[in-house]
Amino acid sequence: MQSTLETILQKRGFDSKRSEQLAYIFAENSLMGKDSHGINRFQSFLDSIEQGVVKPDASPEKVKSFQAIEQWDGNLGPGPLNAIVCTDRAIELSDKFGIGCVALKNSNHWMRGGTYGWHAAERGHPFICWSNTKPNMPAWGSTESRLGNNPLIIAIPREEGPVVLDMAMTQYAYGTLEVKSRNGEKLTHDGGFDLEGNMTNDPDEIITSQRPLPAGLWKGSGLALVLDLLASVLSEGRSTCEIGEQKTEYGLSQVFIAFKAEYAGGKDGLSKIVDSIIADFHGSQTEAGNKVYYPGERSLLSREDNLKNGVPVNRDLWESLKKHV
Amino acid sequence: MQSTLETILQKRGFDSKRSEQLAYIFAENSLMGKDSHGINRFQSFLDSIEQGVVKPDASPEKVKSFQAIEQWDGNLGPGPLNAIVCTDRAIELSDKFGIGCVALKNSNHWMRGGTYGWHAAERGHPFICWSNTKPNMPAWGSTESRLGNNPLIIAIPREEGPVVLDMAMTQYAYGTLEVKSRNGEKLTHDGGFDLEGNMTNDPDEIITSQRPLPAGLWKGSGLALVLDLLASVLSEGRSTCEIGEQKTEYGLSQVFIAFKAEYAGGKDGLSKIVDSIIADFHGSQTEAGNKVYYPGERSLLSREDNLKNGVPVNRDLWESLKKHV
Repeated sequence: MQSTLETILQKRGFDSKRSEQLAYIFAENSLMGKDSHGINRFQSFLDSIEQGVVKPDASPEKVKSFQAIEQWDGNLGPGPLNAIVCTDRAIELSDKFGIGCVALKNSNHWMRGGTYGWHAAERGHPFICWSNTKPNMPAWGSTESRLGNNPLIIAIPREEGPVVLDMAMTQYAYGTLEVKSRNGEKLTHDGGFDLEGNMTNDPDEIITSQRPLPAGLWKGSGLALVLDLLASVLSEGRSTCEIGEQKTEYGLSQVFIAFKAEYAGGKDGLSKIVDSIIADFHGSQTEAGNKVYYPGERSLLSREDNLKNGVPVNRDLWESLKKHV
Repeated sequence: MQSTLETILQKRGFDSKRSEQLAYIFAENSLMGKDSHGINRFQSFLDSIEQGVVKPDASPEKVKSFQAIEQWDGNLGPGPLNAIVCTDRAIELSDKFGIGCVALKNSNHWMRGGTYGWHAAERGHPFICWSNTKPNMPAWGSTESRLGNNPLIIAIPREEGPVVLDMAMTQYAYGTLEVKSRNGEKLTHDGGFDLEGNMTNDPDEIITSQRPLPAGLWKGSGLALVLDLLASVLSEGRSTCEIGEQKTEYGLSQVFIAFKAEYAGGKDGLSKIVDSIIADFHGSQTEAGNKVYYPGERSLLSREDNLKNGVPVNRDLWESLKKHV
């Protein structure tokens, strides 16, 4: 999958290093079981280049810096490449200063936010990052989308596989609503409002009303707002509101914060602390048939399974992508 | 209120500066409409000193530092005093390094987390902090409390009054369940599970089952876990699991992160960015009778109201506190 995507990107003018990196990220996202931000989104990534929204050659540049904090301009380059550069830079800053922060403006959709959490954690660094998005979620009490679902990622290194929370601020992603709708299924829990303002678990009603539920009701709504505020002020980039004034979603604001590995329990201490917390967590009593998973645990299981059995891909999608080779 | 609490604290051996600071924090929490972490909690704070859990004379000390990141030991001193010291220290570090982080171990309940968000934001600093707690919330899929409700605070300065998110990881606080139960009311939304494992909005059922709902279901559950992990590794202090092994809740782990004011839109830019986002937010369409509030807005309204009309206090509670004078 990676080499096919790489060839397609090279044909679109990406140099060999950038096409390799991008293809790796898209393929890895599918490997981790996140097709919605992997192979399934590749065509729309190509489209965004066609439309001139994503500049294939653009790289991020530092525009302002003071010791451990920096502002970068993404120059509308490919979101995943910009995000990896800023993740690596935050890591460098954390090595030098104990903690490092890069605020990135004028970037693009980074696909799976967890990519950067895994990247940092696998290099031994606790890590936090988030992105704003176009308006796609109404505030609690509102009928109209003025907040983004601004994904927040928090990652902690761990030998057996890092703990990586990757949560958007809606209870369910639009992608999930669409899959459930196609299968004629209801959501397991309420996921939004119908046109009359009643909470519902019917994906079609929510797609019609465009009123997905903030995770935790007023809590996810508040968290989405402060993440947008913080990304906008730290990067001096576009807010969700400003992104919404454009025809398409581009020029996002993102924040990357890394911590020095030695300041997280020490090199040996870290594993001990994390393993003991996870062991306690796994010991949680459950109702029959239930199991508790830490954030990132299912991704690890998907990776194992897909490495063994291959990554499942929709045949039509694959055939249509191969036409670009 | 403040001077009464101050007198009580002085009688308990707090010196004049520490009793003033503590009395201010408790009184301000009530002023902001958060009695549960203000006047209503003062007696239990006094009790925790009697029991030897909170050491009235102890102050936090730096135990390890590297440029912009530091570890401090709270020495089991009063949570609010320790937290103010660490907030101020994170601010100092951010002035010097652009971003500053203090991880505090061995501290105590900090009462209202928003206190520290307001403190930093009113001094011009964007700010993030969180605390772990004793186990008081089951993970998603579990019937048994092994996670804390670990409050997370994110604050952004604003001239008219800062935006301060102060969210615990349960959908409803136990305090809210108890008030609703006393009044014979249901919750407005599901807030937990009954003993049979059904979601319910009956506060009594939830108090009986001890299964409050994580805000955002699996999302609040995951966020609670990673906040505990990060607080534990950065401070090398007690995890929620270790706090749960004690008879009472003490020795908490907390993290304080401040950003340099000039790196948040510049001194003049910040207000402009924040005001424009809040103006857009306030313009959200709502259903008749609804209004959207940004995080911290209701606290500001409570403060205005209480400054004009006085802070309402339960008469019996006040009489019983006055006996300590």
